[in-house]
Amino acid sequence: MNMNIWLYAGLIGGALSILAALAAYKNVLKYDAGSARAQEIAGWIRAGASTYLKLLYKTLIALAIILGIILAIVFSGVEKQNHGLLTAGAFAFGALCSALAGWLGMKVAVEANVRTAVACKEGVPEGFSVAFKAGSVMGLAMVGVAVFGMSLLYLIWEDVEIILGFSFGASLLALLAKAGGGIYTKTADIAADLVGKVEVGIPEDDPRNPAVIADNVGDNVGDVAGMGADIFDSYVAAVVASMLLGFSFHKQELLGAQYVILPLVLCIIGIISTFVGLPLVRVGKDGKPGRALNFSTVFTCIVFSVLATAFFIIVNAVSGSMSGNDPMQGLNWGALISTITGLLIGVIIGFTTDYFTNDEHAPVRRTAQISGSGTGLTIITGFSYGLISIAPAILGIVAATIASYFTSQAFGMPGIYGIGVAAVGMLSLTGVIVSNDAYGPIVDNAKGIAEMSGMPHDVVDRADTLDSAGNTAKAITKGFSISAAALTVLAMFAAYCESITTYSKQDLKLDLMDPLVLSGVLLGCIIPALFSAELMLAVTKNAFTMIEEIRRQFKAEPGILKGTVLPDYTQCVRIASAGALKALIGPAFLAVICPLIVGFILGPGALGGFLGGAIFTGVVFALLMSNSGGLWDNGKKYIEAGNFGGSGSEAHKAAVVGDTVGDPFKDTAGPSLNTLITVMSLVASLFAPLIAVHHFFK
Amino acid sequence: MNMNIWLYAGLIGGALSILAALAAYKNVLKYDAGSARAQEIAGWIRAGASTYLKLLYKTLIALAIILGIILAIVFSGVEKQNHGLLTAGAFAFGALCSALAGWLGMKVAVEANVRTAVACKEGVPEGFSVAFKAGSVMGLAMVGVAVFGMSLLYLIWEDVEIILGFSFGASLLALLAKAGGGIYTKTADIAADLVGKVEVGIPEDDPRNPAVIADNVGDNVGDVAGMGADIFDSYVAAVVASMLLGFSFHKQELLGAQYVILPLVLCIIGIISTFVGLPLVRVGKDGKPGRALNFSTVFTCIVFSVLATAFFIIVNAVSGSMSGNDPMQGLNWGALISTITGLLIGVIIGFTTDYFTNDEHAPVRRTAQISGSGTGLTIITGFSYGLISIAPAILGIVAATIASYFTSQAFGMPGIYGIGVAAVGMLSLTGVIVSNDAYGPIVDNAKGIAEMSGMPHDVVDRADTLDSAGNTAKAITKGFSISAAALTVLAMFAAYCESITTYSKQDLKLDLMDPLVLSGVLLGCIIPALFSAELMLAVTKNAFTMIEEIRRQFKAEPGILKGTVLPDYTQCVRIASAGALKALIGPAFLAVICPLIVGFILGPGALGGFLGGAIFTGVVFALLMSNSGGLWDNGKKYIEAGNFGGSGSEAHKAAVVGDTVGDPFKDTAGPSLNTLITVMSLVASLFAPLIAVHHFFK
Repeated sequence: MNMNIWLYAGLIGGALSILAALAAYKNVLKYDAGSARAQEIAGWIRAGASTYLKLLYKTLIALAIILGIILAIVFSGVEKQNHGLLTAGAFAFGALCSALAGWLGMKVAVEANVRTAVACKEGVPEGFSVAFKAGSVMGLAMVGVAVFGMSLLYLIWEDVEIILGFSFGASLLALLAKAGGGIYTKTADIAADLVGKVEVGIPEDDPRNPAVIADNVGDNVGDVAGMGADIFDSYVAAVVASMLLGFSFHKQELLGAQYVILPLVLCIIGIISTFVGLPLVRVGKDGKPGRALNFSTVFTCIVFSVLATAFFIIVNAVSGSMSGNDPMQGLNWGALISTITGLLIGVIIGFTTDYFTNDEHAPVRRTAQISGSGTGLTIITGFSYGLISIAPAILGIVAATIASYFTSQAFGMPGIYGIGVAAVGMLSLTGVIVSNDAYGPIVDNAKGIAEMSGMPHDVVDRADTLDSAGNTAKAITKGFSISAAALTVLAMFAAYCESITTYSKQDLKLDLMDPLVLSGVLLGCIIPALFSAELMLAVTKNAFTMIEEIRRQFKAEPGILKGTVLPDYTQCVRIASAGALKALIGPAFLAVICPLIVGFILGPGALGGFLGGAIFTGVVFALLMSNSGGLWDNGKKYIEAGNFGGSGSEAHKAAVVGDTVGDPFKDTAGPSLNTLITVMSLVASLFAPLIAVHHFFK
Repeated sequence: MNMNIWLYAGLIGGALSILAALAAYKNVLKYDAGSARAQEIAGWIRAGASTYLKLLYKTLIALAIILGIILAIVFSGVEKQNHGLLTAGAFAFGALCSALAGWLGMKVAVEANVRTAVACKEGVPEGFSVAFKAGSVMGLAMVGVAVFGMSLLYLIWEDVEIILGFSFGASLLALLAKAGGGIYTKTADIAADLVGKVEVGIPEDDPRNPAVIADNVGDNVGDVAGMGADIFDSYVAAVVASMLLGFSFHKQELLGAQYVILPLVLCIIGIISTFVGLPLVRVGKDGKPGRALNFSTVFTCIVFSVLATAFFIIVNAVSGSMSGNDPMQGLNWGALISTITGLLIGVIIGFTTDYFTNDEHAPVRRTAQISGSGTGLTIITGFSYGLISIAPAILGIVAATIASYFTSQAFGMPGIYGIGVAAVGMLSLTGVIVSNDAYGPIVDNAKGIAEMSGMPHDVVDRADTLDSAGNTAKAITKGFSISAAALTVLAMFAAYCESITTYSKQDLKLDLMDPLVLSGVLLGCIIPALFSAELMLAVTKNAFTMIEEIRRQFKAEPGILKGTVLPDYTQCVRIASAGALKALIGPAFLAVICPLIVGFILGPGALGGFLGGAIFTGVVFALLMSNSGGLWDNGKKYIEAGNFGGSGSEAHKAAVVGDTVGDPFKDTAGPSLNTLITVMSLVASLFAPLIAVHHFFK
């Protein structure tokens, strides 16, 4: 098997995906952008989004330059030629790629929102078509730049450690984008609700509310840019971790060279499956948009499995290794089974998440029911179901780990490599998942614009139908992405251990009975908790500031509430943007510096334990927060739909508090934890060559 | 060193402690029990407590008989003579000892509450004296029966594994008492508040509220019986774990035989220190009860350190091993330093907890302040500070682990034994800690009785002063007991590994890179979450039932609210008791069965990982829930003291919701997690001989 063929295929596949994204973008722009009023509102959102993005990218550039220089200097000591500069370059390139894809996704989202609203005048299927097309721009762009970037780097330098730098760049951007976006969106959401709905009593998405534009911008920066960057980062990290494992086992002569790039090849197959799956997603006359979104996930999953199997058959036929059980020749069936197992379990986990957050099942209904007896009970009940929801996802992760490990081993391959490709398999659907995810904020915005620009009731209702589907899809993709991130970091964790073993020339044993490893685990357990707390406190602090600003505007200019004077939207956008980015310093510090402190002081064993601890509690808190947040949100909606007293009842008031608590849980802290553990794992792997040799405790 | 001397000393010390408890009990009974009205109210509480205890002990006996028979049968297969019967007997004996001490503690608490109220007529110091004396009954009885029981068993059979059965019995009772008491107390508390304060608008502790007696009973069953059993269980487990480690290292000829019983000896020194410390605790004319409680902790800690050092010097002088660095002769200084390190760090952790829950510091104040902007923000802020509060305690645990391990090693002893005695050191204060803890519900009840029986305002105020001190002391002892439990289970975890190594005749390596170990850890991470959720859902479910009952009574008999007809208190007591004990089945199942399933299916490595995972997330959730709960409670009180709008303001309403959420956090789920992880560790150690040989995955 000639490796370069696959790398060229990666370049071509990646480029095609990017082109498809651009084509979809141009296509979206062709739709009617509506009345002057609608365009004006969309313009404010656009301007607000661009204010935030500029600040975000400035912060990123500052941080990237500092870290780039540090990387260049630190790694110039490593024996390979120019390793410092190359790592720094790859790091910057990774951050740039992720930023570009995110920027494109945001760009199209803020154009598509108003066009979706206008298209809803014709019907739900038409609105769905615009929004989903726009969402797919982000999905296609993400996988495109990732595969293109990694293929290019590997083609030129044939060194997986360079791609590790690329992955670190992507992750760092993801951390800033996800955590920053999460703080931004919930600051605006909570402030807008608390003053608008609760104090002044104006409806959601009312143009008289000074925070309404910030709130709509927030949906884009949190869910488009943030969530996209997050999945992008898991995607790249899963590939890099598997490549590192493949490389390490290849050096130990346990695997053939083809396994180093197999993860990339699986991504190419993923891109092709996305090409097949995406165009088929449409809503019929009376069709449900939610079902269309789920169909895209399941169908692409089937296409991927078929194509991957075909690929293995063809390669083995060509290479003459018909049995496919030899890990040095052709492609081993163990790798295929592991990949598909990962993918299947990922989809199953996604759907179990649905059980806990969908209002058709007991958790949401019981929480809504008990809300009538007091707000405290709403919180306790939702939180408890959130705790229970951890179990199925972790059982899934354990099943995927055990199945892929022992299957690979049964086929004569190193079991850990199987875990790596299982993660890649889970993430092979990234194109579709990101598309579904980006669809959400677009239709949410569309609904807002339809209301604010005074479109007829049936148009708003259609936009609302699209929005509900977005929420369900979001819950599923969130469960999916947390599990995929968990499996990815487990693979990355293994890659770190292999790397330490290589560089220190002795086996790294992460024995829990070793007090340094155990201390590392305990210290690691702290980090996700501190990280979540910092993000959530930033939300409450910024919301507090914004609430003061909204109250000030209402007081200073009584015409705002009468609807005769426009509020100053930019002030709220500014508070949200600046507050979010300022609040990132602490969390970014935690993610990058803590692993280094533990590694250089307590040594590689403690750092391994530290990563483990962070992964364990990180996954637990991510699932708890995302699911309980989703549950409260839908509990509130269930009551608003007329159950247990409906809007305005005591139960509803309690449910609104639940939703407010759930907001930073599900959209700020919970999903950012993925990125946190990925960044920490990457920092550890990247610095493994140094930490293996230099550390205080011997 | 003749071992038997120390075992006899244990018998005598234990017996003296029990006698001192009985003497204090008789002394408390001599105080004035007040007016007929006060006695009538106290009588209801007494009757309610006894209803619950009877049900609890019935459940315990049923469970103990089943488990005893299983233990007797399963362990009859082990090679030692009569091992099955002896283990089962020790198990029953352990449960009985813990039950007896708990029963005595409850008995005195429900007599002392009314007497404290009456004594408050004379002044704060007089009231304090009665309450603290009554609290010390529980403290002295607990350490007395524990040391007596363990010394007796070891004197007769000289087999640490028999004492393991004793410890398991104590833990099982603790699980039932702590979790059951936690559900009981918060069911009654929440229901009484939600209908009484919020719906009907009558004050706390109003005799018209049908749930008021259940609420007062709850304080006793949750905080006296429950918390006492919990610390008792950690205390015994720490000693047993260290004895097991000592025994194992003695067999490997790494330690002399004296280290097998050194943990018991340290307990005897602890008892003597308690004898010295307790009588000195009193409040001066203008003294603060809170300071007196803290003084008791710090002073006993100093006495213990001095006595332990003197003991080591004398033993080494007598045995002629003046250097004290030989782990086979005399007593090694490493063991002393580890013990005192554990103790000091335990006290420090206790005081850091205070930072997060005391209204003089930022966390409580900021949470109270932000309450004015919305209930959601109260919850998010308090929860975030709870997340942060995990860090100092875990840093302390890590410091204790590393310091005791490496100190012991530096002195030529096995490091893990150092961790064991550090845990024993932390828990050597148990007598004082339990006394301080039991003081809390007594003064809480005293305040209730003073109000309900219409005592003058200044008496109620004095009782309130005593109550506030109880809350602060409770926060400190809670942080202390979680950390002590964590260190104990780490020692127990090590004992489990040693045991597996002994019986499987090969080293057990808990390598996180082993997929079975890793899967075990991930599965273990689920358990504390599920356990907490089950307990909290039981609280909301039972509170819901009780709320219906209170509403029913108010409706059926309008005279109740007018104060002309007494409500039916027993109905609420019955709902709380039956509901709590019924809800225990699931959690008990989790604790006992899950480790066995993991062990017998996935093997000893996975079970080791499983324990690890449960410990990691268990400690994290225990700290999070206990501290955020305490924070919300004190935030509410801070507002009620007149800050940020005072009682009745929007901020106060938000803070009340925070307190309701915090109730099951801090008094049901949080502190029960200690017991959960102890029970699981004991189950694993107990079944280690069988699991080492029989398991499905090889």
